[in-house]
Amino acid sequence: MNKIKVTIWNECGDWQQIAHLATNFPKEYQEPVLNLVKEASIVYPKGIHGAIAELFDSKDFTVKISLLSDTEQGLSKSVLDNTDVLIWWGHFLHDQVNDEFVERVASYVQRGMGIIFLHSSHHSKPFKRLLGTSGLLKWREKNEKERIWVANPAHPIAQGLDEYFELEAEEMYGEPFGIPEPDSTVFIGWFKGGNVFRSGVTFTREYGKIFYFQPGHETNRAFYDKNVKRIILNATRWANPIKKMPELVAPYSKELESLD
Amino acid sequence: MNKIKVTIWNECGDWQQIAHLATNFPKEYQEPVLNLVKEASIVYPKGIHGAIAELFDSKDFTVKISLLSDTEQGLSKSVLDNTDVLIWWGHFLHDQVNDEFVERVASYVQRGMGIIFLHSSHHSKPFKRLLGTSGLLKWREKNEKERIWVANPAHPIAQGLDEYFELEAEEMYGEPFGIPEPDSTVFIGWFKGGNVFRSGVTFTREYGKIFYFQPGHETNRAFYDKNVKRIILNATRWANPIKKMPELVAPYSKELESLD
Amino acid sequence: MNKIKVTIWNECGDWQQIAHLATNFPKEYQEPVLNLVKEASIVYPKGIHGAIAELFDSKDFTVKISLLSDTEQGLSKSVLDNTDVLIWWGHFLHDQVNDEFVERVASYVQRGMGIIFLHSSHHSKPFKRLLGTSGLLKWREKNEKERIWVANPAHPIAQGLDEYFELEAEEMYGEPFGIPEPDSTVFIGWFKGGNVFRSGVTFTREYGKIFYFQPGHETNRAFYDKNVKRIILNATRWANPIKKMPELVAPYSKELESLD
Amino acid sequence: MNKIKVTIWNECGDWQQIAHLATNFPKEYQEPVLNLVKEASIVYPKGIHGAIAELFDSKDFTVKISLLSDTEQGLSKSVLDNTDVLIWWGHFLHDQVNDEFVERVASYVQRGMGIIFLHSSHHSKPFKRLLGTSGLLKWREKNEKERIWVANPAHPIAQGLDEYFELEAEEMYGEPFGIPEPDSTVFIGWFKGGNVFRSGVTFTREYGKIFYFQPGHETNRAFYDKNVKRIILNATRWANPIKKMPELVAPYSKELESLD
Repeated sequence: MNKIKVTIWNECGDWQQIAHLATNFPKEYQEPVLNLVKEASIVYPKGIHGAIAELFDSKDFTVKISLLSDTEQGLSKSVLDNTDVLIWWGHFLHDQVNDEFVERVASYVQRGMGIIFLHSSHHSKPFKRLLGTSGLLKWREKNEKERIWVANPAHPIAQGLDEYFELEAEEMYGEPFGIPEPDSTVFIGWFKGGNVFRSGVTFTREYGKIFYFQPGHETNRAFYDKNVKRIILNATRWANPIKKMPELVAPYSKELESLD
Repeated sequence: MNKIKVTIWNECGDWQQIAHLATNFPKEYQEPVLNLVKEASIVYPKGIHGAIAELFDSKDFTVKISLLSDTEQGLSKSVLDNTDVLIWWGHFLHDQVNDEFVERVASYVQRGMGIIFLHSSHHSKPFKRLLGTSGLLKWREKNEKERIWVANPAHPIAQGLDEYFELEAEEMYGEPFGIPEPDSTVFIGWFKGGNVFRSGVTFTREYGKIFYFQPGHETNRAFYDKNVKRIILNATRWANPIKKMPELVAPYSKELESLD
Repeated sequence: MNKIKVTIWNECGDWQQIAHLATNFPKEYQEPVLNLVKEASIVYPKGIHGAIAELFDSKDFTVKISLLSDTEQGLSKSVLDNTDVLIWWGHFLHDQVNDEFVERVASYVQRGMGIIFLHSSHHSKPFKRLLGTSGLLKWREKNEKERIWVANPAHPIAQGLDEYFELEAEEMYGEPFGIPEPDSTVFIGWFKGGNVFRSGVTFTREYGKIFYFQPGHETNRAFYDKNVKRIILNATRWANPIKKMPELVAPYSKELESLD
Repeated sequence: MNKIKVTIWNECGDWQQIAHLATNFPKEYQEPVLNLVKEASIVYPKGIHGAIAELFDSKDFTVKISLLSDTEQGLSKSVLDNTDVLIWWGHFLHDQVNDEFVERVASYVQRGMGIIFLHSSHHSKPFKRLLGTSGLLKWREKNEKERIWVANPAHPIAQGLDEYFELEAEEMYGEPFGIPEPDSTVFIGWFKGGNVFRSGVTFTREYGKIFYFQPGHETNRAFYDKNVKRIILNATRWANPIKKMPELVAPYSKELESLD
């Protein structure tokens, strides 16, 4: 069995980059963003990508980090050619991802690369590009309790979980969620403040499998939770392509039966 | 525009029938059932079917009641031939519906009759026969608050509703819900006690449209709620067949091209 | 890796049983059926089940045959408890399968057992029971050429196939096909006589995976074709449950949050 | 009943524009394109848009033409604000549509505008943007016979059609077709030369309905065929939004239950 090649993409290598960029944000966003970043750098001192990278053991996976600040925004052909499953986390800098690379990511997914979108990546360009919808949702940052129910216990992504698990503090994401009907609604979240959300949903785009998973706010601790870890591992195995689309030959097709 | 012909099917014409039958139930069920029936006959003195019948105005609909105690259990060909949309409510007597009539209902749905399953009808035979799954779910009767979110605001069944509405007291139904992936998850319920549920889901079976809707416990007051009423009306219009399957001619089919 | 436990169910152990039973068929069917059986016993001297059994190597699979004439029609709990994937072929005797065993098969599928329906099994009771539709289709027995196209080359069931393959002689099955929208349309068939058909389609019913595959008329030679063999092997691996539904405990569910 | 506002978008107002632009195409495409255009201008002297416009009666529809050469490529906000259903035909100039307007079209569809993609528009930018897949398919221009089967006779788009209809000469489009699983496969095409194709498929993207329909090569006569006309009319009525997405208010959402 070959190891699964995982690339974790993040918009920032360390939180100070966001803090620095925030000086260009609209005035009213600056302080809230700086506060978020301050908290986040305590919760995730190695960055979100750092925390996620630690989920994977080296026996079954090879893991690389790719950053917005890397060559070709961390989405070069050589990176994607060496990726079975791409894990995407972004929040503040969605707009800075070049359309050219968004198209490239979409094309790699269509040809088989798995992709896992975490939390605020519902607003990332590749998410919207692949699903064709807005990704809109309700939100509230109040560190409130979420209970995530397994709605499809037969799904590979739900293996090893109990009927539900709880996160003591998470950002609320609420319905309606601007997505197409999923292939499977694996998880549905219950929020203390009165909202619900399809917290884990799967899609297929030709050869590529897509999983969106809602937890993961930068000032909460989801990526240290054993259930969240389990889900990301399960999803990575599930999204690993069984086959990649063969090199596209000219789709012109001679007749196979007489046309007379 | 022709009126939509609605048939409301109920397992009992009045609650005393259940009370009477309960004497044959296993000992431990008898008292709880009698208590339920006592309460239900106060909340719905004309029966659930009576309350539902009042939703429909006579300008757009003709409404008939069909009961388990009627000829052919209220599911005769003449009844179904005169039904565009069948609304089904049952709870205690699912097992008493004859398989022959279950097959007949399924066949009418396949040929175009719409069907709306309410509340505990998730365990009725026609529900399981049409969906092919168990209909299993979690439940709790504690008169707890439910908030129903519109997950698909574009769906015809959700027209005229706000983003959510609340029922002050309803039986909890919780995930996982034993259904196939729905065509659309129109509603998702949030329960005070910590559960979530896909409260309104649609399916298609050949020419027939199917809507399952969760509220409607017999001792609560859902069928008097303006949003629930609206939903049942919307669903009835939506499930009204645009076309019924033509009489089946022999499906033997001569070749249309030379086989030489 | 445990071996996959395959049970191949057939309505008849040898063709003479059909010939014998045909004496009770309506007059006009008797001769055609006898002719079919005569031909079939030349093409498949060990029965359809015998031909299918030979596809599976003993390294990865244990294979058992189950017949309508066995105890409990070959569908006893002990048989099904020892089945990961059930392969079903029937044609003449669909009606003789007891509803009790149909329910049982459906329930095992819902709890995880995979099921593969071959050819005329589109009219079997378990097929209709699980899908909720009529399974109706067009048909023509003219030994005509079929070309089966891979519509979803990324699907596990299509692995190792070329873009299409041909069967020199097969019964025509044609659209419209009375099924719900499939999870995936893996194959679409082109028939010389001018028809098309969704020849390979997948469904899910809770924990259970379902594959319907159209080739397999008893007087043609599909089950000796290397592509058909490959597909049945692929489908068996695909339908092998990753998990079976746990024993059902009472779904009554205590509240997880205060109801005050 | 308000009239349905239809906008027919075409990449060219008259065929000479293509002929003129072809001088910039790669050498090997120039002659074939000029030949196509010469033929097309005989078959559709008023352009494809002109032929389609004639399908709609003025009692139920208001029809406008929008061209790539118009202000904002015929996709200005004022055009789209006055469009219930957009019909898209393009072939040679897909790449010239600005990404900004592609995003705009996608956003209007998400908010309710219906869209019908005809024939070679499977390669248009809005098609790929909305579906998230490549739209790849096989093709062959040999004026061959196609027979289009109704696979979902219950669908509104199939109303009034027989079981199948034939086009004496059409470009072959063949599977595999690079699309997500459709909401409904309404039509499947059989081609004389041995291919099959999902010729009519529907999708939903939030409030917007999408129909793709395969016939319509510029040198054939599909848009004069009574069945094709019927289908485009049916699809236009079907795609007409029942509701448009309300103006987006801030999706920040205050808690509805105490967080204590």
